[in-house]
Amino acid sequence: MIDNPYYSHEFHGEYDLVSIGRLDLEEGGSIPDCELAVATFGTLNEAKDNAILIPTWYSGTHQVWRENYIGPDHALNPDKYFIVVVDQIGSGLSTSPHNATGPNAGIAMSRFPHVRIGDDVVAQERLLREHFGIEKLHAVVGGSMGAQQTYEWAVRFPEKVERAAPIAGTAQNTPHDFLFTEVLVEAITSDPGFAGGEYTSNADVVEGLKRHARIWAIMGFSTEFWKQEVWRALEFTSKEAFLEGFLEPYFTAMDPNDLLCMAWKWQRGDVARHTGGDLDAALGRITAKTFVMPISEDMFFPVRDCAAEAAKIKNAELRVIDDVLGHLGLFAVSPTYMPQIDQHLTELFESPV
Amino acid sequence: MIDNPYYSHEFHGEYDLVSIGRLDLEEGGSIPDCELAVATFGTLNEAKDNAILIPTWYSGTHQVWRENYIGPDHALNPDKYFIVVVDQIGSGLSTSPHNATGPNAGIAMSRFPHVRIGDDVVAQERLLREHFGIEKLHAVVGGSMGAQQTYEWAVRFPEKVERAAPIAGTAQNTPHDFLFTEVLVEAITSDPGFAGGEYTSNADVVEGLKRHARIWAIMGFSTEFWKQEVWRALEFTSKEAFLEGFLEPYFTAMDPNDLLCMAWKWQRGDVARHTGGDLDAALGRITAKTFVMPISEDMFFPVRDCAAEAAKIKNAELRVIDDVLGHLGLFAVSPTYMPQIDQHLTELFESPV
Repeated sequence: MIDNPYYSHEFHGEYDLVSIGRLDLEEGGSIPDCELAVATFGTLNEAKDNAILIPTWYSGTHQVWRENYIGPDHALNPDKYFIVVVDQIGSGLSTSPHNATGPNAGIAMSRFPHVRIGDDVVAQERLLREHFGIEKLHAVVGGSMGAQQTYEWAVRFPEKVERAAPIAGTAQNTPHDFLFTEVLVEAITSDPGFAGGEYTSNADVVEGLKRHARIWAIMGFSTEFWKQEVWRALEFTSKEAFLEGFLEPYFTAMDPNDLLCMAWKWQRGDVARHTGGDLDAALGRITAKTFVMPISEDMFFPVRDCAAEAAKIKNAELRVIDDVLGHLGLFAVSPTYMPQIDQHLTELFESPV
Repeated sequence: MIDNPYYSHEFHGEYDLVSIGRLDLEEGGSIPDCELAVATFGTLNEAKDNAILIPTWYSGTHQVWRENYIGPDHALNPDKYFIVVVDQIGSGLSTSPHNATGPNAGIAMSRFPHVRIGDDVVAQERLLREHFGIEKLHAVVGGSMGAQQTYEWAVRFPEKVERAAPIAGTAQNTPHDFLFTEVLVEAITSDPGFAGGEYTSNADVVEGLKRHARIWAIMGFSTEFWKQEVWRALEFTSKEAFLEGFLEPYFTAMDPNDLLCMAWKWQRGDVARHTGGDLDAALGRITAKTFVMPISEDMFFPVRDCAAEAAKIKNAELRVIDDVLGHLGLFAVSPTYMPQIDQHLTELFESPV
């Protein structure tokens, strides 16, 4: 257990911790008492058919959704929908290496077991059913690793997902993505302060976390983001100031083991695990109306990879989000980003199924 | 002085070491006795007007040109042209941090001064003039950092360069490229074995050099290279085997300080240094017939950046090389790569000026 103030209500606003009990994991082992951090918006109607689930991305939590994506002016409108954002296992808010105590003390830090995208989705399904009484989702919406979970939902529980919006992510992680994530992992684990995962503070690993941030700088943003100096719109005066004032503080606040837990999961996201490796068959199971929404300048979830998957889904449309930021367009800082997201999601949410 | 067997005739075939004497550097300081490694092919004619200069790229030497680009079946035909490949300063063959001895002993290893692309070009011009009596070049051809030097030649000595073929590189390094290179630098310098540049063997820095190799894996090759498992054509059975059998041995054989010398140079390549920062004016000085030849899938010298520069050059044409490998298509392993290069270079070399 590491005391890390970043993972708190101060930085992440209101959310609840809900225990779903023991979670047995696909890779073996279990989380004795799996707690999920959950932020909800709006009200579940009597028919319990207005719920939208949002799983979170690598390093992200419900907070970025609250601040940018959810509101009465957005497609994710709490006046109409009951929106449930569930922080993924390893996010630092839900059960994670750094916060494993009490019944989870035996899996703290470097002893945390490998978790898969499928484990998150099983945990979320149990949470929705047992805690909220939700048996069917109006939609699942997620970006990046959230898109991986969205696809996993649509393949694993096709009858429970009416609509799906995977944004900037794939159903089957690509080899390039695997290698990219490995580079992120190595930036952290190569820091002598990492101490095999048994550091005493994330500050011990600050150099590794900074390198990790700077790798994000070259893959998370597009070449054109840097060429056009788009960071100026974010009130920075140099690219160095942007790195030191934005990306580095963003990642150095986080817990290394938590990031590694998510990275391992990300690397192995693959819906074809349900169909003996047959991706066509796996995506063929999806019945949800699906909008596949890559970001135009994404360096590591390129449009063509998403388009190739969309072509394998019966009821899918490719809706490319145009954003010079690239993958980290997900932060929703371009003024033209949310209008596109809202337009597509509104259309999706209002589509008959 | 480090004894590194990689930088030898065994690995780099025939080449000569030619001293051009003391080289004063743009950033201050000097190389007391600058030796350039030079491999030549063909014969200089009496008019001394059939010379083609090839400057080298990051980590590359004349050997990759000898093995793949030069020959009677290629545009770079030694039966017609006198081809001079000059290894850049810091390449490990020319004067470099790891081999600085004798008069250069004072600048060995971590004391090696910063060298700029302009310093290389000044050194090459002196070599060509004083050693070979060459006053004018039929062409300058270079890839990546070799493209940076090609542009520098065409801007600095416009009257000496009749034709220019910058392949997969830019005249002004981009901010994204700067950050990418910084990530490469940090992979090396963060290795405790680097010891501030005073390691006793490159093997001390093997972990850093491996990380450096794996960063190349995700930026040097395209997402599609990995998706299509193009490494199978290179007789590897898995992407891991390709990394361990190709990229890692390639880079771990090299000297860390030498790579850092080249990286610093690469980051700061900018022909606009001649014109007070005005890139249009700098490129406007080019009189050479220029074929700007980006590689279609290049992740960090994208086609659009090269196209934007081509548009600023009076006598330039954009000739995109289609290659799924991306930047490291420069290794010339795609069967479709050299035919494209040869076609464009033949046309360029035969163009009237």
